[in-house]
Amino acid sequence: MEKDIDSRKARNIWLTIEYDGTHYLGWQRQPQGLSVQEAIEDALSKITRERVVLTGSGRTDSGVHAIAQAANFKTSSRIGTTELQRGLNSTLPRDISIKSAEEMPENFHAQYDARSKTYLYRVLNSPHRSALERGRAWHVAQRLDLDSMRKAAKFLVGEHDFKAFALTSRSVKTTVRRVHRLDICDMGRGITGGRVIEFEVEAGGFIKRMVRLIVGTLVKVGKGRLAPEDVKEALRTGNRTPLMRSAPAQGLFLKEVRYGGGNRGGNDRRG
Amino acid sequence: MEKDIDSRKARNIWLTIEYDGTHYLGWQRQPQGLSVQEAIEDALSKITRERVVLTGSGRTDSGVHAIAQAANFKTSSRIGTTELQRGLNSTLPRDISIKSAEEMPENFHAQYDARSKTYLYRVLNSPHRSALERGRAWHVAQRLDLDSMRKAAKFLVGEHDFKAFALTSRSVKTTVRRVHRLDICDMGRGITGGRVIEFEVEAGGFIKRMVRLIVGTLVKVGKGRLAPEDVKEALRTGNRTPLMRSAPAQGLFLKEVRYGGGNRGGNDRRG
Repeated sequence: MEKDIDSRKARNIWLTIEYDGTHYLGWQRQPQGLSVQEAIEDALSKITRERVVLTGSGRTDSGVHAIAQAANFKTSSRIGTTELQRGLNSTLPRDISIKSAEEMPENFHAQYDARSKTYLYRVLNSPHRSALERGRAWHVAQRLDLDSMRKAAKFLVGEHDFKAFALTSRSVKTTVRRVHRLDICDMGRGITGGRVIEFEVEAGGFIKRMVRLIVGTLVKVGKGRLAPEDVKEALRTGNRTPLMRSAPAQGLFLKEVRYGGGNRGGNDRRG
Repeated sequence: MEKDIDSRKARNIWLTIEYDGTHYLGWQRQPQGLSVQEAIEDALSKITRERVVLTGSGRTDSGVHAIAQAANFKTSSRIGTTELQRGLNSTLPRDISIKSAEEMPENFHAQYDARSKTYLYRVLNSPHRSALERGRAWHVAQRLDLDSMRKAAKFLVGEHDFKAFALTSRSVKTTVRRVHRLDICDMGRGITGGRVIEFEVEAGGFIKRMVRLIVGTLVKVGKGRLAPEDVKEALRTGNRTPLMRSAPAQGLFLKEVRYGGGNRGGNDRRG
């Protein structure tokens, strides 16, 4: 029997969540199929015997992964955080895991309190596709020029109107965002022997499809099909050129969500 | 219409193959379900319109992966190796990919000519399981002592009777093998933030389950449940103690097969 939460006794629990997004319709609960949010809410309801509502730091699209998504929920259950984490990890499907569970002050909100987020995008830049990298990297056969991609990336760092790099809807008030950093690293030959290029973008906030449109565009620059200055021009005009396309979902990982008093990231040693 | 191969005109093609073994019953063709060999033979038959028999460097168990399995087959088709590789990579399921295809002298044999093989075994040594490492590493929660594992590993290097570290059957004439090296590396925190320990074993040949029994035993040593000297004793007596158990398949990767004139490995730059 699930109960409603007694708000007078409610505790506020912060979860850090890793997932392989391949088999989910994204983070956000929806009627058409299984989302990561729904899978975790179901597990939480089983463990706490309450109707639990989980608030994520933000949505991730269908097929996108998380190294460290952050979320919080209220519960009147007295279960300890260690026990809760263990219970979740034994209840949840194998492609979702809980990295930490911590009790927070009652006003903590995983979405509104997020100061910045970091996304990782992985490109396999190799003549042939890779069985072991499928679903975890975008395979780009043509050799990419990192210098020109880095030149283009510099235009994107700082506060800009990212209208040309977003799927906008009426619900978005502004398309201005601050990108703190955009690093492009040649990771060399990965476990499978193919060259892996990693894009890491940290920003105060992101608009729908922003990272995938940025990476898709930078890859066109790396192929020589767009000039670095085309990126500057797109920022200025707010217009997307036909060559600016979204990179596929499977290379994208939500890597870290930072909060005022700390963060929840793949390499976080707290907790 | 599939034809038999005209042996007078037969060419001998060497393939290097990467696969995610999760959804296969192992390398070797068998009646109970899909094997990697069968999937590739089917694709080759479609492309060459011949009945193709693929000879692997050796079997891999159900669920075991390959970064670079080697195999050869005879064909009278005149298809170029570049075109063949492309054709295979567009025909094969996404969890199998062809890294190279090369024409070899007619007497080249992927099994008999293999000089050594290298296996990689990945352990996620972290308090909690990981969604993104599932199927690619063995999750061991208890902190492992690398020094004692390395001490035990030293006993295994060289020529020994590995009877205690093998599932033997009557078809195996001898359980003596030469282990060229057995390295244990702390890879630090991987992409998901968990500590990854890699075991790399190169040997002239392996017996069934040998790598998984070695790793399973070394992990017991790392937990302090076996002493390094127990490994030495097991080699001497040929008896497996009840604590020596096989590590699970999903952490194991066939990484490289070396031949006289070269090799086929994850980091091979030839071809």
